[in-house]
Amino acid sequence: MAEEVILLDFWPSLFGMRARIALREKGVEFDMREEDLSNKSLLLLKMNPVHKKIPVLIHNGKPVCESLIIVQYLDETWGPESPLLPSDPHERARANFWADYVDKKVYPALRATWLSTGEALEAAKKEYIKCLKVSEGELGDKAYFGGERFGYVDVSLIPFYSLFYVEKLADFSIVEECPKLVAWAKRCLQRESVAKSLPDQDKLYDFVLELKKKLQSQ
Amino acid sequence: MAEEVILLDFWPSLFGMRARIALREKGVEFDMREEDLSNKSLLLLKMNPVHKKIPVLIHNGKPVCESLIIVQYLDETWGPESPLLPSDPHERARANFWADYVDKKVYPALRATWLSTGEALEAAKKEYIKCLKVSEGELGDKAYFGGERFGYVDVSLIPFYSLFYVEKLADFSIVEECPKLVAWAKRCLQRESVAKSLPDQDKLYDFVLELKKKLQSQ
Repeated sequence: MAEEVILLDFWPSLFGMRARIALREKGVEFDMREEDLSNKSLLLLKMNPVHKKIPVLIHNGKPVCESLIIVQYLDETWGPESPLLPSDPHERARANFWADYVDKKVYPALRATWLSTGEALEAAKKEYIKCLKVSEGELGDKAYFGGERFGYVDVSLIPFYSLFYVEKLADFSIVEECPKLVAWAKRCLQRESVAKSLPDQDKLYDFVLELKKKLQSQ
Repeated sequence: MAEEVILLDFWPSLFGMRARIALREKGVEFDMREEDLSNKSLLLLKMNPVHKKIPVLIHNGKPVCESLIIVQYLDETWGPESPLLPSDPHERARANFWADYVDKKVYPALRATWLSTGEALEAAKKEYIKCLKVSEGELGDKAYFGGERFGYVDVSLIPFYSLFYVEKLADFSIVEECPKLVAWAKRCLQRESVAKSLPDQDKLYDFVLELKKKLQSQ
């Protein structure tokens, strides 16, 4: 059967980037459909009626929602010879823990830097850097989070690198604060799957500038 | 090798209950160690240095943290003849989605009912009931979320039933609002794994009453 793979996505989405990277890691041909989030498509509303959010993977008509669940689904469905998640249950649990950490801690901390100004912004910046340093501690001296091979935790965190450049909006330097994490990010970017999936930093900078204005005026 | 399985837990924890249920579903003998969360044990701080939260499963000295990750780990490590998660990747993704929904929507909505008073409480109650109704919609007329067998989504949501009784604190009736969900919960409670893992409702009622006072005075 011919596989039909559609990704409902939005180019600056960190979560969309995860799905794109995993699809490319697995060599899956897909049709990326850009959503207008101010006027969501009927397909998006039908395929993700609960959260109404991108990314949504539609594989032969069936939806898979939530970025980490999409990455796991892709890992289980394609390319068993190049797994993203380790097979050992304890190593899997560890990878799940650190990907979950990105969602529970790193992302909310980043978002807080967009929402806040003044003293609250200073606190938010500190918290964000703290979360990145905790991630860097888990990386340690390894090439990738899982060891020698690019894997699940790398997919979950690398989209944030596309926003490191945006740090200049908040006047802090991740390059200085987290040198090992930056070296890891550059290593990941040498992969075609990552390089093709992360947006242009200048374009993203302009987008986040607008987003901050919008969020802070609410 | 003799298996050493320790669960660092706290009796009223919805997340701890998940781990207990899954351990009992899998027939794993375990040593449940009650934590004093105002004076956490050195073992807890060592085994979960990132979040410093229960539950933590310690299997032969190695920690697994975060309740859903613990349930997955248990499912992969014990009793392949009675899996909690389905083997089909799309069905797995669906189960992961609904367990994730409990964490992302149901729990925050419940917590909001504890934190709020007056009009905010009315809004919080509505949101909580809405989330339960969405879950009930996914259950439909099935015996369990996954169909005929008790599984992963059931483990993730059933602890909340122990708090349905607490609804009288907020003056709303889940029995009236979600009759199918209540019938499902009673079905789950017929399982020894569930009945043994959920605390006494009167004891939990007193605990939540104190918790609400504490949260609202902060």
